[in-house]
Amino acid sequence: MSDKQPDNSQLADFFPIVNWLKSYTRRDFDGDIFAGIITAILLVPQGIAYAILAGLPPQMGLYASILPTAIYALLGTSRTLSVGPVSIAAIMIASALATPEISALGDSVQSALILAAESGIIMLLMALLQMGGLVNFISHPVLAGFTSGAALLIIANQLPQLAGSKPPSCGFDLACYQHYLQGFNTATLAIAIAALTILIFFGKLLDSLLKKLNLPMTMVTGISKCGPLLAVFLTTLAATYFDLQAQQGISLVGVVPSGFPSLRLDFVDITKWKILLPSAIFIALIAYVESVAIAKVTANLRGEKIAPNQELIALGVANLVTAISGGMAVAGGFSRTMVNFSAGARTQMAMLIAAVILGVSVIFFSGWFANIPKATLAAIIIVAVFPLVHIRNIFHTFNYDRGDGIAELVTLLGVLILGIEKGITLGIILTLASQLRKASHPHIAVVGRIPQTEHYRNIKRHTVEIWHHLLLVRIDENLTFANIGYVEDYLYDELNRQPNIKHVVLIFTSVSDIDTTALEALEKINHALQTSGKTLNISEAKGPVLDKLRKTDFLEQLKPGKVFFRTEDATKELG
Amino acid sequence: MSDKQPDNSQLADFFPIVNWLKSYTRRDFDGDIFAGIITAILLVPQGIAYAILAGLPPQMGLYASILPTAIYALLGTSRTLSVGPVSIAAIMIASALATPEISALGDSVQSALILAAESGIIMLLMALLQMGGLVNFISHPVLAGFTSGAALLIIANQLPQLAGSKPPSCGFDLACYQHYLQGFNTATLAIAIAALTILIFFGKLLDSLLKKLNLPMTMVTGISKCGPLLAVFLTTLAATYFDLQAQQGISLVGVVPSGFPSLRLDFVDITKWKILLPSAIFIALIAYVESVAIAKVTANLRGEKIAPNQELIALGVANLVTAISGGMAVAGGFSRTMVNFSAGARTQMAMLIAAVILGVSVIFFSGWFANIPKATLAAIIIVAVFPLVHIRNIFHTFNYDRGDGIAELVTLLGVLILGIEKGITLGIILTLASQLRKASHPHIAVVGRIPQTEHYRNIKRHTVEIWHHLLLVRIDENLTFANIGYVEDYLYDELNRQPNIKHVVLIFTSVSDIDTTALEALEKINHALQTSGKTLNISEAKGPVLDKLRKTDFLEQLKPGKVFFRTEDATKELG
Repeated sequence: MSDKQPDNSQLADFFPIVNWLKSYTRRDFDGDIFAGIITAILLVPQGIAYAILAGLPPQMGLYASILPTAIYALLGTSRTLSVGPVSIAAIMIASALATPEISALGDSVQSALILAAESGIIMLLMALLQMGGLVNFISHPVLAGFTSGAALLIIANQLPQLAGSKPPSCGFDLACYQHYLQGFNTATLAIAIAALTILIFFGKLLDSLLKKLNLPMTMVTGISKCGPLLAVFLTTLAATYFDLQAQQGISLVGVVPSGFPSLRLDFVDITKWKILLPSAIFIALIAYVESVAIAKVTANLRGEKIAPNQELIALGVANLVTAISGGMAVAGGFSRTMVNFSAGARTQMAMLIAAVILGVSVIFFSGWFANIPKATLAAIIIVAVFPLVHIRNIFHTFNYDRGDGIAELVTLLGVLILGIEKGITLGIILTLASQLRKASHPHIAVVGRIPQTEHYRNIKRHTVEIWHHLLLVRIDENLTFANIGYVEDYLYDELNRQPNIKHVVLIFTSVSDIDTTALEALEKINHALQTSGKTLNISEAKGPVLDKLRKTDFLEQLKPGKVFFRTEDATKELG
Repeated sequence: MSDKQPDNSQLADFFPIVNWLKSYTRRDFDGDIFAGIITAILLVPQGIAYAILAGLPPQMGLYASILPTAIYALLGTSRTLSVGPVSIAAIMIASALATPEISALGDSVQSALILAAESGIIMLLMALLQMGGLVNFISHPVLAGFTSGAALLIIANQLPQLAGSKPPSCGFDLACYQHYLQGFNTATLAIAIAALTILIFFGKLLDSLLKKLNLPMTMVTGISKCGPLLAVFLTTLAATYFDLQAQQGISLVGVVPSGFPSLRLDFVDITKWKILLPSAIFIALIAYVESVAIAKVTANLRGEKIAPNQELIALGVANLVTAISGGMAVAGGFSRTMVNFSAGARTQMAMLIAAVILGVSVIFFSGWFANIPKATLAAIIIVAVFPLVHIRNIFHTFNYDRGDGIAELVTLLGVLILGIEKGITLGIILTLASQLRKASHPHIAVVGRIPQTEHYRNIKRHTVEIWHHLLLVRIDENLTFANIGYVEDYLYDELNRQPNIKHVVLIFTSVSDIDTTALEALEKINHALQTSGKTLNISEAKGPVLDKLRKTDFLEQLKPGKVFFRTEDATKELG
């Protein structure tokens, strides 16, 4: 980051905007203004749609697209991340609001504000505790399984709306679904099909068509990303012109209050905050992890860097601000960020522009939003989240690493069957447990010398020279309390199988640390070997390991066993 | 174990006694009978003392020394472990019984039986789930800190009894202790000092005296271990002869019912079992971990092996049986096991003999136990647990490994301040968290070649040859979701510092696994390098890692980057 400019580095650490603003050019602005407009065009329908998905009034999605988006632009380290309402956070809010304890609180708007405010505070606390690295403890397979599962939940929730039914909460009760099928409304379905047709046409077909015309890429992106706006415009026009609500009973968004929300602080209520805390923790965690993952994708493409801890601050403040300004919880959105990026955004100026456009829309055009058919929004949501479902990915993962594949599948099924929060918890616990399990079963190899070289390799994998009274064992991990028991058992088993062994050489190429428990075990092993007239030796130990061992009398205890610089030295002397 | 005798291996797996019984000799018996008698002599006062320490009637310690001891002899894999009442389990029972929820249940005898039964069932469940390896997740520093803390708690609890006061529960309230000092009783103190003198004389002085006389070692052990019995005998005689209870107000053990306890099953009560479950889990965990640790000490000395899972079964059944036969929870005792071992025990026959002696004592001599002064038992407990306090050990540990030293100190203080269960939990969480932290900060070194060799070492530690457009990076750990973020940052930082690098070679000597998250990150890194005209290469990759990578198209993606067998090949071609 700004380590090389000591004059303003502190300011720039907290306001990364300073970094790019001082070298901002006209060319940057040309890219940013176009991308900002395109992203704003996407933000309006997404904002309304995701608020409705979360079970909240539409304006909460719009409010979440103004100040929070601008705040992230000032504080965030990603130059292209589009922060605002996102589908995954929306389904998490919906799922939290639907739990009995929370719905018993009443006033779901207030609960949603509390969730956003608490998530923001949690992120800021994590930043304070330098816990940005926590993102590393959710593995990609778990995140992928979670995202697929959440996307499937969203689709299952929105599909009935395409035909005018409310989202069912039937679970595995098939008879229950029949009831919803009866809510079927032809006019709504027609609107939905029209919207889907426009979205799909603009999404893939138009894109490749325009590319064939050799139009500039930003232009292609600009036109093809107008699909959602056009779908909204045309179906709203149809709904208004034919008065479909009164004539055919299709559902519209309804009145969206115009103008800015008044800043509010009336949601501070200890009891409610306590009840909502667990859900807020999950929203904070997922919002943070997904945002950083998305930010890294575009940052890698441009060779920029994301500072995890600063991201926590930026997203934390954005969520506090969304709560105060009457919006829903926010995060970085995948599809919107990709649109912003491919429309040519060069800095967060694009998002500042988008925020201004949203602000203007809310003030002047919110009356126009009332007649948007809900089916159109359902179609937009489905098309937006469909790319997040990666079922085939599970097979790829399984094929490469069985444990990871199982974790991905279990997380996906967990989300679908147990729900959002329990599903991701299950996935995280599973990977941590398997991490500990792997750590307790280190890779150990008995090695021999590859003829005519000084290289020592696994006797099971290579044709090597061995010495019958010499046991060369390479331990491929740090020696800790978690794995030393396994190492001990391995050595004793090997010695029982080969009673003629006189010297054991532990090859420490891969050992960078030996903790107290492991040191005690090595002392015991050495003692046992000496008692039966054998020696324990060490080779290829790294500097820090030897430094640490020299603080103890272990190297003294080893005698006549020795520390050899190279394994070759050990075989020359003992072999 | 018995893998080589397929005929009775299954039987021997479940009854390890079969292994040694079939080759049992007269010589074995000579050792065992002597050790059995000596250990029984220790078991009687310890059994009564530990039951009183736990706040239970004295017979519960005696009952715990009969059937459970015999059960372990049949099922356990250690040939010398003495299972029965132990001090650490006793203080854990006392601490559990003292908590408000549990003391509210009333009938502490029943609660203690439930604790033993539940601990036994938990151990059996752990055995079923093959969780014997769980012992590896409590590091030695945590166990040492816990043991020292528990021993200090026991001493603090028993010290007032030397002077006839009840154990205070004053915590840090000094005024409260004054009240206890007023309970001071001169006769009791005299008895205690007499007992302590005998114990200390027999413990250290007599031992070295007898050794100078060149008596056989078993004889020395036999005589010097009679200290507790002699202390009990002499002080009981004094108490009876001078009628110290009536005349001087000293406390005696009181009536111990004679004969066997009736087997009972009247403690099955779901509500109570639920309330006691958390404490039972801790007792099960500590009883198991401490027993295996002690069993391993003697097993290592004789080159025998402990099978952790079978230990769970043996200790689990022993605890179920102790509950049914009216005893307190049992585990392997450190001092008793060492006495048994050094008195020449060769097999668990010694413990079968001790169990018979205990049984006979309970039937015929329990009347004699009523007049044992409690102060004598307090003296026995203090002398027995004093060697478990290892305060200086913390400094040794800290000096070798700071994190381990802190964990040991925190666990010790946690036990003293927060109590037994919270203290050990704190220690375990601390080590797991530091384990994860270490895992996320792998050791990485930029290496160069040691001149005139084919060896590559850290450029910071050795004088080595380097190539200015070649970056050789050795990663000293498996690549996983937990650490790949760190590796990524490290590489990008290094490349930013050295913009002239053309080829990056990752040396995989220490990498035995690459998980899905890490593979994806490597693909991203490779893509980023290729975009800026650099190549990513791999050297010294192990067989299993290459096998796994070959299942993906990563090696294809690398091109023109290559996989080199040896780092030397890489520098020859790229250097």
